[in-house]
Amino acid sequence: MNGPRVPGCLFCDIVAGDRRGHMVLSDGVAAAFLDTRPVFKGHVLVVPDGHVETLPDLPPDAVGPFFARVQAVARAVEEGLEAAGTFVAMNNRVSQSVPHLHVHVVPRNRKDGLRGFFWPRTKYADEAEIADYAARIKAAMS
Amino acid sequence: MNGPRVPGCLFCDIVAGDRRGHMVLSDGVAAAFLDTRPVFKGHVLVVPDGHVETLPDLPPDAVGPFFARVQAVARAVEEGLEAAGTFVAMNNRVSQSVPHLHVHVVPRNRKDGLRGFFWPRTKYADEAEIADYAARIKAAMS
Repeated sequence: MNGPRVPGCLFCDIVAGDRRGHMVLSDGVAAAFLDTRPVFKGHVLVVPDGHVETLPDLPPDAVGPFFARVQAVARAVEEGLEAAGTFVAMNNRVSQSVPHLHVHVVPRNRKDGLRGFFWPRTKYADEAEIADYAARIKAAMS
Repeated sequence: MNGPRVPGCLFCDIVAGDRRGHMVLSDGVAAAFLDTRPVFKGHVLVVPDGHVETLPDLPPDAVGPFFARVQAVARAVEEGLEAAGTFVAMNNRVSQSVPHLHVHVVPRNRKDGLRGFFWPRTKYADEAEIADYAARIKAAMS
């Protein structure tokens, strides 16, 4: 393992080689291995080498190299499995099963039966409400 | 708009300012605006300034700057909306509603009722099958 390790962390153990993973990549920046309970077979988890809990916690100079690996894995999942596309996602804190940042890369195909996370959708009450949400997020950007 | 524009692309139109978006960020690298049919209120879409269809299509030198903006938006959604966490996701081709890369940043809270995309899960038949999937993806990494 290249970066800092947290004792007892499942993903740190896999990156360090102390626990078995079905690895597809490990290069000192990131490790990628199969999720053993996949949404679809070929579902990969990409994790930073070095313990980081969530996306906001990733150091600025690690963002580019880490997501370059995520991109490479997304490409490889499509090509290697002849998938029509991919779903790439991460849960930060809520619904995050292991508190070590992990990006899911799931192969997708037409009519694969995956029911979207993205339903149902809601609506804003009015223009004032949507403007208020935008303003609150924008204020926090600075 | 800073990067290449595709006529008739909804997100290019928003980045260019020809169609209204509730913007939270626009800096020549990326634009971020509210999804008008949010999973939860405050749901933001982050898109590259310059038309790119999917994550694998993003030029290598654009990956770091683009995901730095995604990270900043994830932080701002948490802070600005006092959310417990975020869900950050993109669909590449399959289930992708607009063919211009867009990363969803959705505020999450405990017991928010969001039924996971990630269920149900499946299983590999045996060790040989999981090893085969890992090998196929790994071969496509090079």
